[in-house]
Amino acid sequence: MNFNFYMPSRVIFGKGSLNNLHKQKFPGKKALIVAEVFMKEIGYLKRLEEQLDKADISYILFDKIVPNPIKEHVMEGADIVKKEKCDFIIGMGGGSSIDSAKSIAIMSTNEGDFWDYMTRGTGKKKAIPNDPIPVIAVSTTSGTGTEADPWMVITNGKEKVGFGYDKTFPYLSIVDPELMKSIPPKLTAYQGFDALFHSAEGYINKIANEMSDLFALKSIELIGKSLAKAVANGEDEEARENVAMASTLAGIVQSVSDCTAEHSIEHGLSAYYPKLEHGAGLIAISREYYTLLAESHDCDEKMINMAKILGKKDASKPMDFVNALVELQKACGVDNIKLSDYGVKREDLPAIAQNSKFTSGLYETDPHDFSDEDILRILEKSYK
Amino acid sequence: MNFNFYMPSRVIFGKGSLNNLHKQKFPGKKALIVAEVFMKEIGYLKRLEEQLDKADISYILFDKIVPNPIKEHVMEGADIVKKEKCDFIIGMGGGSSIDSAKSIAIMSTNEGDFWDYMTRGTGKKKAIPNDPIPVIAVSTTSGTGTEADPWMVITNGKEKVGFGYDKTFPYLSIVDPELMKSIPPKLTAYQGFDALFHSAEGYINKIANEMSDLFALKSIELIGKSLAKAVANGEDEEARENVAMASTLAGIVQSVSDCTAEHSIEHGLSAYYPKLEHGAGLIAISREYYTLLAESHDCDEKMINMAKILGKKDASKPMDFVNALVELQKACGVDNIKLSDYGVKREDLPAIAQNSKFTSGLYETDPHDFSDEDILRILEKSYK
Repeated sequence: MNFNFYMPSRVIFGKGSLNNLHKQKFPGKKALIVAEVFMKEIGYLKRLEEQLDKADISYILFDKIVPNPIKEHVMEGADIVKKEKCDFIIGMGGGSSIDSAKSIAIMSTNEGDFWDYMTRGTGKKKAIPNDPIPVIAVSTTSGTGTEADPWMVITNGKEKVGFGYDKTFPYLSIVDPELMKSIPPKLTAYQGFDALFHSAEGYINKIANEMSDLFALKSIELIGKSLAKAVANGEDEEARENVAMASTLAGIVQSVSDCTAEHSIEHGLSAYYPKLEHGAGLIAISREYYTLLAESHDCDEKMINMAKILGKKDASKPMDFVNALVELQKACGVDNIKLSDYGVKREDLPAIAQNSKFTSGLYETDPHDFSDEDILRILEKSYK
Repeated sequence: MNFNFYMPSRVIFGKGSLNNLHKQKFPGKKALIVAEVFMKEIGYLKRLEEQLDKADISYILFDKIVPNPIKEHVMEGADIVKKEKCDFIIGMGGGSSIDSAKSIAIMSTNEGDFWDYMTRGTGKKKAIPNDPIPVIAVSTTSGTGTEADPWMVITNGKEKVGFGYDKTFPYLSIVDPELMKSIPPKLTAYQGFDALFHSAEGYINKIANEMSDLFALKSIELIGKSLAKAVANGEDEEARENVAMASTLAGIVQSVSDCTAEHSIEHGLSAYYPKLEHGAGLIAISREYYTLLAESHDCDEKMINMAKILGKKDASKPMDFVNALVELQKACGVDNIKLSDYGVKREDLPAIAQNSKFTSGLYETDPHDFSDEDILRILEKSYK
C-alpha cells in the first residue's frame, strides 16, 4: 500500500455557495475573470461580479474562451494580467475556462510562449522559473474535475496537450450545484461521462492506490445513481449535487492517480476536430476502449468491480462493465454518438492515432500496453 | 449537501517511505527535530538523521517531549528555533511530538506566550500575527491523525487545549507503516481506538458531511478489519498498513468534520492525570459515552451504520454499536481499563467535568446537547 496524496485546493461545495464567495479570503485586490462568452448571457457573470463588488475586488473580464481552449487565448489573457497588474485569476465555467485560467496564471509571471513549458508534443519542456499567480475556480459544469486537480488541457494547432504541476491546483474552488441546473441534457451527459471516465481510468490505472480508489469508487457510484436522473430532469437537485460531487471526487482521483489511454485517444481526436466536445469524444470511443481492455484481461477484477457498482450485482467478467456502461449511455440518450457527425474523416484516423501518442503521456500508466494497432483499432471501430 | 474541503498537507504513505525522505523538497536548510526521548533508543532518530544528511539539511535535536505534551516544551523549542535560526521543524513520533512541533512552529515566529493565542480555557484568544514556519511530520504511531489535520493538543497546568488553523497543517507528512511495528500491543490498541473515535465522532458530528463520511466510514472499516490483528501480531504488515491508513483518513475526517464531547471529556481527564494515555482515556469512557448517545436517540441511524461496518450485519438499534465497540475492545485486550489504575480520584470527577467544558469547544458539534449531569454521568459510570 503506497500513495502520495496532495490536493491543496480549498473546495467550497454546496447549493448557493457562489452567494458566499464574497466572504472568502481573496489572494489580492484585482482579478482577471476568464470565461466563455455565454457566461454573460446566462447571468452567472453578473452574479460573480456582485460577489466581487461586495468583497471590494476590482476585475477585468476576458470572456473569449472557446470549447477545446487554445494557446492564443492563454497568451492574450496573460498579456492583460501583465498590463493591468491583476493579482489573481478567476476561471468561471467548465474545463475550458478554468484550464485557461490556470494556463494564463503560468504565463502571467513567466516570459516566452506557453508551449515553451509544455512537456509533450512539440513543447520545449523548459522549467517554469516563476510560480503562477493564484486561480479561483468557479465551476458551472460537472465533469472536468479541474476544480480539484492541477491539470489543464490546451490546444495549439493540432496538438491538444495536458499539463499541470504542484503549483497549478486552484487556490479556491467554488462548486455550486445550483449553477449546473442550466446545463442542457446532452451536455450534462457528456460532462457526467467525462467524470465517470476520470474515475474509471484512475481506478484501472497502473498507479491506482487505496487512496485514489476511495474517491474513484464513490464517484462511479454517484454517477451510476444520479447521472441519468440529472439528464432527464436538470432541476433534480439531489441528482445535480451527486453528479457535481462525483466530478469533484474524480478531480481528486486525477490528482492521486491518473487518466489512461482513453483520454489520450480522445485528445488526439478533438485536437483534429475542435468542435467535438471532449465528453462526446470519450463516449464515442469508450465502448471499444473498454472492450479492448476486457479482451486483453489486463484489469478483469477492477472492471467487474465497476460493473457491480454500476448496478450489475452479479457481474463476473470484464465485459459486464462494458455492458453496464452502454446501458448507462442508453439511459442518458448518448449511446449512439457518431464521429462522422463531427466531420471526422476515416482517412485521418492513422494520423490521429500517431498524434495521440505524440501528445499524451497517459499511455504509460494504462493497464494495457498499447500498440499503434490497438489505438487504430479503437478509432476504426468507433467510427460510424 | 454542503462541505468545505481543505487538507493541503502532502502525505507520502507506504512501507519504507522514510527511506525516501531525502528525495523530497525541503522548506529550508536547517531543521529542529522535535521528538520524545525514546526515538533515539529505538533507532528511528538515526534513520531520520541519515535522511537529512543525504539531503544536506543541518539539524538540531530537541527530544524532551512527553506524552500529553506541555506548554513549557513548546516555549523551550521555539527559543531554540529562534536562537539557532532553524527554517523548519520535523516532528517525529506520535501526536505528542508532532503536535509540539506544530506549536513550536507558531511560537518560532510570534512573540509572547503560547497561551496568548489559545482560544479555550484561560487562553487570551489573540490573533496570530505571523505565519508559523513549516512542519514535517514523521508518524511513528497510528492514531493521532495529526499528520493530516491542523490540530495540536497541548497541556498547560490543568488545561489540555486543542488548537489549529489553516496554517498549521503539516507541509509534508511521512506515514511509514514499517515504523509502527515497534509499537507494543497495548499502545497499538490505544492509538487504534483513538483513530476509530476520530472517525466515529466525525461521522456522528453535527457538521459531518458526505465528504467527511467518505473518509470516516472507510477508516472505521479498516480499524474493524485490522486493529485486533495488529494488536495480536505487530509484525502483520497488512494490518499495520490498514491501521496506519485508518489513522491518516481519520486525520482528514478531523479536517473536514470535527471531534465531539468524547474527546472533550478525555482531555478533561488527562489534563488532571497526565499519565493517562489519551487512547486509554478514550477507551475508558467510550462505553458510557456511546450508551448515553444511544439512549438519547440523537444519532440512531449513524450508530447502526457504524455497527454494521464493524461486523454486526443485522444491526438495528444504536446499542448495537456499543456492543460492537466493546467486542472490538475485548478482541484487543483493552475492555477493562480502570480509571482508578491511573490514580483518578472519584472526588475529582465534578472538577474534571467542569474543566472539560471550560477547555473544549467540541461539545458544540456533538449530536447530543450535553448537560453538566450528562458529563458527570459518563465519568461516574466509567469510574472503576
